[in-house]
Amino acid sequence: MNATDFVKRLLVGRKLASAQLGETLLPKRIALPVFASDALSSVAYAPDEILLTLSLAGIAGFAFSWQIALAVAAVMLIVVLSYRQTVHAYPSGGGDYEVATVNLGPSAGLVVASALMVDYVLTVAVSVSSGVQNAKAIFPFIAGYEGVWAAGLIVLLMAMNLRGVRESGSVFAVPTYGFMIGVLGMTIWGLFRIYGLNEHLQAPTAGYGVTGSPEYEPLVGLAMVVLMARAFSSGCAALTGVEAISNGVPAFREPKSKNAATTLALLGGIAITMLGGIVVLANLTGLKLIDPDGHSHFTQNGVRVEVPHETAMGQLAKTIFDTFPLGFYFVIAMTMIILFLAANTAFNGFPVLGSILAKDGFLPRALHTRGDRLAFSNGILMLASAAIALVLIYNASVTALIQLYVVGVFVSFTVSQFGMMRHWTRQLKTERDPKVRATMMRSRVINAIGLTGTGIVLLIVLAAKFIYGAYLAVIAMAAVFLLMGGIRNHYAKVERETAVGPMDARLLPSRVRAVIMVQEVNKPTMRAVNFARATRASSIEAVTVSIDDAETRATVAKWDSQDMEVPLKVIASPYREVTGPFLNYVKGLRSDNPRDVVCVYIPEYIVGHWWEQLLHNQTGLILKTRLNFMQGVMVTSVPYQLASSKYAIDRAQRNVAAAWRRPGSGQVRVGDRPRDTTGVE
Amino acid sequence: MNATDFVKRLLVGRKLASAQLGETLLPKRIALPVFASDALSSVAYAPDEILLTLSLAGIAGFAFSWQIALAVAAVMLIVVLSYRQTVHAYPSGGGDYEVATVNLGPSAGLVVASALMVDYVLTVAVSVSSGVQNAKAIFPFIAGYEGVWAAGLIVLLMAMNLRGVRESGSVFAVPTYGFMIGVLGMTIWGLFRIYGLNEHLQAPTAGYGVTGSPEYEPLVGLAMVVLMARAFSSGCAALTGVEAISNGVPAFREPKSKNAATTLALLGGIAITMLGGIVVLANLTGLKLIDPDGHSHFTQNGVRVEVPHETAMGQLAKTIFDTFPLGFYFVIAMTMIILFLAANTAFNGFPVLGSILAKDGFLPRALHTRGDRLAFSNGILMLASAAIALVLIYNASVTALIQLYVVGVFVSFTVSQFGMMRHWTRQLKTERDPKVRATMMRSRVINAIGLTGTGIVLLIVLAAKFIYGAYLAVIAMAAVFLLMGGIRNHYAKVERETAVGPMDARLLPSRVRAVIMVQEVNKPTMRAVNFARATRASSIEAVTVSIDDAETRATVAKWDSQDMEVPLKVIASPYREVTGPFLNYVKGLRSDNPRDVVCVYIPEYIVGHWWEQLLHNQTGLILKTRLNFMQGVMVTSVPYQLASSKYAIDRAQRNVAAAWRRPGSGQVRVGDRPRDTTGVE
Repeated sequence: MNATDFVKRLLVGRKLASAQLGETLLPKRIALPVFASDALSSVAYAPDEILLTLSLAGIAGFAFSWQIALAVAAVMLIVVLSYRQTVHAYPSGGGDYEVATVNLGPSAGLVVASALMVDYVLTVAVSVSSGVQNAKAIFPFIAGYEGVWAAGLIVLLMAMNLRGVRESGSVFAVPTYGFMIGVLGMTIWGLFRIYGLNEHLQAPTAGYGVTGSPEYEPLVGLAMVVLMARAFSSGCAALTGVEAISNGVPAFREPKSKNAATTLALLGGIAITMLGGIVVLANLTGLKLIDPDGHSHFTQNGVRVEVPHETAMGQLAKTIFDTFPLGFYFVIAMTMIILFLAANTAFNGFPVLGSILAKDGFLPRALHTRGDRLAFSNGILMLASAAIALVLIYNASVTALIQLYVVGVFVSFTVSQFGMMRHWTRQLKTERDPKVRATMMRSRVINAIGLTGTGIVLLIVLAAKFIYGAYLAVIAMAAVFLLMGGIRNHYAKVERETAVGPMDARLLPSRVRAVIMVQEVNKPTMRAVNFARATRASSIEAVTVSIDDAETRATVAKWDSQDMEVPLKVIASPYREVTGPFLNYVKGLRSDNPRDVVCVYIPEYIVGHWWEQLLHNQTGLILKTRLNFMQGVMVTSVPYQLASSKYAIDRAQRNVAAAWRRPGSGQVRVGDRPRDTTGVE
Repeated sequence: MNATDFVKRLLVGRKLASAQLGETLLPKRIALPVFASDALSSVAYAPDEILLTLSLAGIAGFAFSWQIALAVAAVMLIVVLSYRQTVHAYPSGGGDYEVATVNLGPSAGLVVASALMVDYVLTVAVSVSSGVQNAKAIFPFIAGYEGVWAAGLIVLLMAMNLRGVRESGSVFAVPTYGFMIGVLGMTIWGLFRIYGLNEHLQAPTAGYGVTGSPEYEPLVGLAMVVLMARAFSSGCAALTGVEAISNGVPAFREPKSKNAATTLALLGGIAITMLGGIVVLANLTGLKLIDPDGHSHFTQNGVRVEVPHETAMGQLAKTIFDTFPLGFYFVIAMTMIILFLAANTAFNGFPVLGSILAKDGFLPRALHTRGDRLAFSNGILMLASAAIALVLIYNASVTALIQLYVVGVFVSFTVSQFGMMRHWTRQLKTERDPKVRATMMRSRVINAIGLTGTGIVLLIVLAAKFIYGAYLAVIAMAAVFLLMGGIRNHYAKVERETAVGPMDARLLPSRVRAVIMVQEVNKPTMRAVNFARATRASSIEAVTVSIDDAETRATVAKWDSQDMEVPLKVIASPYREVTGPFLNYVKGLRSDNPRDVVCVYIPEYIVGHWWEQLLHNQTGLILKTRLNFMQGVMVTSVPYQLASSKYAIDRAQRNVAAAWRRPGSGQVRVGDRPRDTTGVE
């Protein structure tokens, strides 16, 4: 417990009071990098995935890249417009979950929640993996240990997020803006060199031919449709993360909705521009990529050749900044960093969602209330664990992980848009002001377009990716859905079962019969006797189980010599067992008068080391577990603090003191005293 | 808990009452196989170890085998004579441990106990391993999986022993007598064929030469002394197990001591005869063994050859019963079985010793009292686990394990003989009857010879085997010694700390202030309130921690609507934490009046499945752990049995019922009813 406290404090920093919540609100210029890093960073891998999918049709396939990019940009536009309606309608930030729950009922909300939870995990896994893959170009020693490096980076992100939203914001602002400047600058500079200076820029892979997979090589008919669908589906990874802003509205400064909507529009515009720029540059410089898993490969003079893999971003930066190496390093460094940080979007959204779900009874209640810090540490820990598992299993392969991706986001998009249509329809029923009605009608049309668009994309994505991995995401969502539904049903059942009836307040037991478990006559037993006597029970007796005649005689003699005012009863135990006979005795007391309550007092040794637990309290522990199943029996532990228990207390206090001295732990305020966390005196 | 109960019942059978102890007492004809199987079975591997050690001196080494066997027989005689004194002097069966503790003090007793515990484990490991090695001749598929097979057999033995001593006795009688008949019959038949029929019997390995290790090849000077010491030390494995009878005296029928002494004499005579017989036959038939680890090997016409390994027992049986295959199979089968069963000696002695040690505070007290069955299931489980670990680590290699063996037995022999000398000296101080004094003097002389003999052997064994593995046994003994000493010191410290003082019985708290932890207003909370009210505390209040304003308001409204007679106090929690503010509140109550006692009532949900635990009681659990460290606070769990808790009860009852219907569970007697084990109603 105390070691945990220490680690937690070291990683997390001091606690924030509810009243401090205002301090962590974000201005637009910080909110954009915090919430948009996911959507923007996907520019780093979405074009790659479009191009390498198209390579399956051979060299001819690349010609379709700009059409695919246009389609993705169109979907982005639709989604951004739709979500601007959402942030205005729901400023409280439940996002898609709230929209679906309020308008379509809890089951729809649960569908969205399951989809989002799975996709948050994948966002972290894919972004960090892509970052690690890109980093290999500069740090070759990563190769072979991608999974471990990715896991390490997720731990780092986790620690940063456990320290709170605000600190994250300032950490993320610089590289996010750096990435935008880098990519947009590269695009402008590239276009200027090509069209302004009439230079003939050639990507490193421009000179190679590409042979595709026999499956798609004659790019006609069904094969063409399938390949385009796959390329489009992978490209749609660029859309993930847009919903983060609608989930995060409460973290914006006032006017929350307006600021969030503006940020959303900015995000959409920037993402489309960056994506378009990269695809255009790739076409102009003859850039090519292959998908080894899909059996496309490079050729030179018709002969197959092996070319070391380089990302589109890397090739373009190398080509366009061939005379300006600093530009190359800047673009690559910013790409790497933003990909690592993109995972942060999920770290912002997931714990909020988890806490809302816990409050609604879909997750263990402890997740809602036990967090020490506003950022809901438990959710952060869950997200990080799941993402670490994924990157370790797939060794941080983006191409493998991307197949599981996107499905969840579009499930949530689609359900949410449907919910928004219902929302406007309902609003229109009561709204009379024609001007407001006009706005609502317009919003409903936008959301209808959004529903149609995202629904079609969802079907395409499912069809195109299902056998390549999307089925795993669907299974995971179904599992999360069933688990959370099961938890809610359980809580609902328990709530019905424990609902207060009319007579419950009057079910006062007629008498309390105190029974003290005696194993030895010593201070802990004496304390139990004295405490039991102080409660003035109707009857009070000490009970010992005889497993050894000589010992029992000694115990009885010692009891008598102490002049105790409580009688000691000896129970025979023919099987040399303590638990069974004691339980039977209590059972007998109960059946003699069912309206009585039996209170069993168990002296408990409180120790300072875990191993001391093995030497004490074992019998009491078993007894307590079994007594719990008896009606009308309560169990009172009377703790006796052995001298060694002070080690545990000292340990706790040292840890708090250490955390307290930690640099940067901020100034001391009233109510922020260390004893809050120890719980020991 | 209940699955454990079920498995336990299935493996262990029904419980035995203390009064039934008499039923498990053993007549001599059953006691001999039960307690002597270890000492007798070592005849199966002790000659092998002597011969293969001597092979390191090349072919000339084997000539010394009968001298080594004679030395071992002499030590056996001394030890048996010495222990006959012990069983007469200490009929209560503490054995070496009791002798050492009573006469030389607790530390000497602890030395013996540590040595015996390590050697019990090794007895199981070596015997079962040797059995598996021998079994390979008939069941070749065992090869390569010796460790796993040995582990499986130890599990089987464990299960048999958990069912009780008596059943073991009848299981073991047949093969033990079968083994005696087989080996002695083989010896007589072999000698008759050689000397009576003048046949020229040749063992399968008689035709080969043997080249030894260069270290020992010129068998002169120090090399000769060292080699003889090593051969003798390995041969002394034949002596292990003799002490089992002195530990097991209470299991004999009356007159216990006399019967035990007679059994001991019988054991000694039979073991010496069998050992001698095998060595003589090995010499007469030209049998040879090599030690591949020690670099001796077979040769033919001066060229090294590989000959498949066969045990001495196997070669002799093949040679002597070459015209009577049934005899061969009988001897091998009995050897295999007795080796497996020899481990049973340890299963008889170890748990008894463990229980005595637990009673004396050297092992966790729970080991003494919690056993369901007279055979002390906990000790059996500990022994089996340690032995399984050993056979898996060494893959059941007898040659590797034998290096760790014997040390412990001779430590215990030596200390115990020293204790016996002290015993007689002390007895002589008070005894006046000259006839009795003469007997005592004679006994003391015997024990003096025993002390000298076993002490010298201990030194030889330590010197000869130390670097080959005995050091591990010494380390293990030291570790066990320190662990048990540490446990006793801990218990002693706790006993001093908790010893009742003159005023303890009068330290009655002035008032009891009841505090009920409220998280929701429902039946479990109502029950806690009603139970708390029934105890008629001096003051009583319900306390809830506010982590969400709306929720808290709802809770308070519900509380007020219930017309409760207990006030509900709301504690603010600026950090959205439950534990900290609650603990501070209780702390405040305590410091207001230190002579008061605070009793915290925590409603607890009792559930039927482990996973339901994750959804309930988490806050209460943390709270309880921390409250335990506060002085003057007791914690009462008020259990509320949810409907699902009946699954746990049903499960427990089904298990008991199943065990009850089990064939062979015997007739039902009064006091032997299944509800004893469930503890649930």
